[in-house]
Amino acid sequence: MSERFDRLWIGADLATMVPGEALIRDGAIATRGETIAWVGARAALPGDASALAAEVIEVSGRWITPGLVDPHTHVVFGGDRLADFVRRIGGETYAAAASGGSGIAYTVAMTRGADDATLLRDATRRVHAMIVAGTTTLEVKSGYGLDVETELRMLRVARRLGALGATVRTTYLGAHVVPAEFADRRDAYLDLVCDEMLPRIARERLADAVDVFCDTLAFSPRETARVLGAAQRCGLPVKVHADQIADTGAAALAAAHGALSADHLEHTDEAGVAALAASGTVAVLLPGAFHYLRETVKPPVASLRAHGVPIALATDCNPGTSPVLTLPTAMHLGCVLFGLSPQEALAATTRNAAHALGLADRGELRVGARADLAFWNVAAPDELSYWLGANLCTAVIAAGEDITPQPSVA
Amino acid sequence: MSERFDRLWIGADLATMVPGEALIRDGAIATRGETIAWVGARAALPGDASALAAEVIEVSGRWITPGLVDPHTHVVFGGDRLADFVRRIGGETYAAAASGGSGIAYTVAMTRGADDATLLRDATRRVHAMIVAGTTTLEVKSGYGLDVETELRMLRVARRLGALGATVRTTYLGAHVVPAEFADRRDAYLDLVCDEMLPRIARERLADAVDVFCDTLAFSPRETARVLGAAQRCGLPVKVHADQIADTGAAALAAAHGALSADHLEHTDEAGVAALAASGTVAVLLPGAFHYLRETVKPPVASLRAHGVPIALATDCNPGTSPVLTLPTAMHLGCVLFGLSPQEALAATTRNAAHALGLADRGELRVGARADLAFWNVAAPDELSYWLGANLCTAVIAAGEDITPQPSVA
Ligand SMILES: [Zn+2]
Ligand SMILES: [Zn+2]
Repeated sequence: MSERFDRLWIGADLATMVPGEALIRDGAIATRGETIAWVGARAALPGDASALAAEVIEVSGRWITPGLVDPHTHVVFGGDRLADFVRRIGGETYAAAASGGSGIAYTVAMTRGADDATLLRDATRRVHAMIVAGTTTLEVKSGYGLDVETELRMLRVARRLGALGATVRTTYLGAHVVPAEFADRRDAYLDLVCDEMLPRIARERLADAVDVFCDTLAFSPRETARVLGAAQRCGLPVKVHADQIADTGAAALAAAHGALSADHLEHTDEAGVAALAASGTVAVLLPGAFHYLRETVKPPVASLRAHGVPIALATDCNPGTSPVLTLPTAMHLGCVLFGLSPQEALAATTRNAAHALGLADRGELRVGARADLAFWNVAAPDELSYWLGANLCTAVIAAGEDITPQPSVA
Repeated sequence: MSERFDRLWIGADLATMVPGEALIRDGAIATRGETIAWVGARAALPGDASALAAEVIEVSGRWITPGLVDPHTHVVFGGDRLADFVRRIGGETYAAAASGGSGIAYTVAMTRGADDATLLRDATRRVHAMIVAGTTTLEVKSGYGLDVETELRMLRVARRLGALGATVRTTYLGAHVVPAEFADRRDAYLDLVCDEMLPRIARERLADAVDVFCDTLAFSPRETARVLGAAQRCGLPVKVHADQIADTGAAALAAAHGALSADHLEHTDEAGVAALAASGTVAVLLPGAFHYLRETVKPPVASLRAHGVPIALATDCNPGTSPVLTLPTAMHLGCVLFGLSPQEALAATTRNAAHALGLADRGELRVGARADLAFWNVAAPDELSYWLGANLCTAVIAAGEDITPQPSVA
């Protein structure tokens, strides 16, 4: 029977995330190859479950959602920033006790000094923690190399993370900050980014998109526009770290370039939000950094809603400002700190997060979509945003295959 | 060879938490029965590892800490408070969408209406999540029954949670709030607590301690003193929910009664801290509620340090104000929100948390202590407080036995 499904899960409740579709109680979902082949109520299955699939799995008491999508991470980096952590939380009390370097410049030095095997081993540990908590697709940025060799190495290491089973989308972030050796030659660094690194990265197909940190501490709108234009001439989609520290008009600039997403947006004004709505750019909110930095100015959630801008959430996992690895943590913080509803938070890590990466084949449980599924031990989907710090995910399926990391030995 | 160890782990780094003792690199730790029989550097082992123990486990790349101790939870309760969650985060936007009851009174109604099997099943799910993240001892309070039958049922269910392998210490919290049916007869409710429930609970050995919620919304200092005195006449140690909402002198009252701990302390003044220091009472801080309620007045950490009051941290896991299940989450929040150092946070969930429960046999890795161990996939112990939302615990040993919950099927 060539029409048989490969796998069929029955009895779980389903949050399909298809717009306008209700939750499905006592559901069934089937895969054929890498794709969802059937989804609906168990009672509507076209026949006896045991005859329909090679493998039938009873999962009553579980919820199934689309595999989660993390559209903004910096998960490849060298060293750690624990000394910065101690300084930050301790203020005067502990500053003297902290040893080690600080800031992005320190992470750049550690990343340049780390070999590929070390970068891959450390990032693997982090991505394992993400997958255990339901992530089946993640974006990974470069941006701690800031020289040709290390930026390319970071992107190659990011590509190799795909072997863990989750989809990895790579983003070139050479325009993260100006490296120290170019401090008084900003334009020369931008020449390197636009004229040397970008064409080579595009030629070697190392990046799926290009990002620029547009803010008072990083690149001006004029500089950002130059990089975005160069990226687009190389055929690469763009996105922007926008308005985290101040409103520089970065969101509107991202929209003017048809960016996939504008990320952060704490200081974006109404005009910036309207521009995002007009361009169909996704707003990626990053509550982990807001929490860790004890920020007080929130992104304009009410305005984003009013203008119909799709809202996504990401971990922003990075060593200096967002020690968050799991998307349910970002969902909890998005609700408690930014006032998203639990339903908005789940759309923000599934359907809308997929859009933020330009991926139309996932983020919803529907026939024909990629068979990326997360299974949850909860009584209601809102629990995913409610609990903080416990992993409620029990299994993860990517492209139809079980990729749940096995627990390590003691 | 009767002197052989039962189990010997070699190669891990050890954070013994013994005061004044340095971290041990490339360490070894052995158990005999329920007890730690040897701990030190691997190089100092009295002979070849393979000859020393029935079972030798190589665990290079792991850190071992004492099993974590959670000295304040409300993990047994009926129903959920997801409607309250949606109301709280949504403000005006979602209030209309939230359905279901609210507040402690709602949880009391749901707990009274739940049968023992349901209470046990739901609490088991939560305690599993705690153990997975390194908890080997936890306190569980009653306080959602507020009638004789349900308070006793809660304590019996709490005792049964001990079957999961972690030590469960039960606390009678009949004086949580005045139940609705006694709203205009507060003294009659206190009669019930002091003259009927307490003696019976003591006689049936259902509680290891007695707690009172002393605050403007719960019980006055005079009422609290009455319950504490009755508990002590029954031979039970006491503790107090103190000064969470306002400074009512509850910390000093707890100290005057020689309480094991005074918990919350957001509004405690210098005199209250000095009283805690004089009585040897542990300060149990609860950053989960501070985070979830978006509080702004922090507990007096600098003053607690200056007076030498031992600081513990707990999850305070409860459905209404602290959706936190794991102690590393409490450690992270204790550092980021209250300014504890990562070292203080680890002492606060090991040695000091054990003191808060009156348990002198755990919380440190030393010969003779109970063999409660947590294994961590981190490069440094400070990482336990740094990351938020990822489980870095790889194995949990309680009384010498592996109690790591096995992953559920999909
Ligand atoms: Zn970022
Ligand atoms: Zn409490």
